[in-house]
Amino acid sequence: MKQKEQLCQFKLMASRDALEVIQGKWRIPIIISLTYGNKRFGEIQRDITDISPKMLSQELKALEAYKIISRTHYDRERVSNVEYSLTTLGQSLHKLLEELLNWGVFFRNEIVNKNITP
Amino acid sequence: MKQKEQLCQFKLMASRDALEVIQGKWRIPIIISLTYGNKRFGEIQRDITDISPKMLSQELKALEAYKIISRTHYDRERVSNVEYSLTTLGQSLHKLLEELLNWGVFFRNEIVNKNITP
Repeated sequence: MKQKEQLCQFKLMASRDALEVIQGKWRIPIIISLTYGNKRFGEIQRDITDISPKMLSQELKALEAYKIISRTHYDRERVSNVEYSLTTLGQSLHKLLEELLNWGVFFRNEIVNKNITP
Repeated sequence: MKQKEQLCQFKLMASRDALEVIQGKWRIPIIISLTYGNKRFGEIQRDITDISPKMLSQELKALEAYKIISRTHYDRERVSNVEYSLTTLGQSLHKLLEELLNWGVFFRNEIVNKNITP
């Protein structure tokens, strides 16, 4: 019983670490957007249509601080720009995102099929 | 390219559905606590030591509305009580929680080993 409680506590801590990083409405969408290639600010904004520029800027900074994404400044054809990409740590979220997606689809089907409106 | 964008949009929506349900600091810990058996209010509070009674009450109601947990009232030995348990939909979060845990452990190791303080 003691061991069961310790395992429960361990799982709570590890999951909370993960949640801390991906929390909120916007971080996962940003990460998913970047799994489809490196992108500029405006390109991410086009993927996540209802995010405000201020919020996108804030969340990109947070993800950068967590080493999930990196920010590269480059000059191309005399145009200066900034591109965002997933780091190795960011890419390691792949399986978690896959499960989030799978369950999201399952949940949506359950809700729609059973006419539950939460 | 069009198809790639549509796939990206689809993944964004499904993941957002899932996130909507498990969002915040407390819902995943509550769900994890209930994977270790049906529990009373006070028992969940003992697992998640830093949650306030008001917040726990609010989050239990939200998870009940999403059909993730159910609330059972029972009388046992003349003591009236309420117990919470995971529904089938709640139990279906199992794999997602597992991945959240795995990534949380991986992230913690990465951060600690490389002395990164986000």
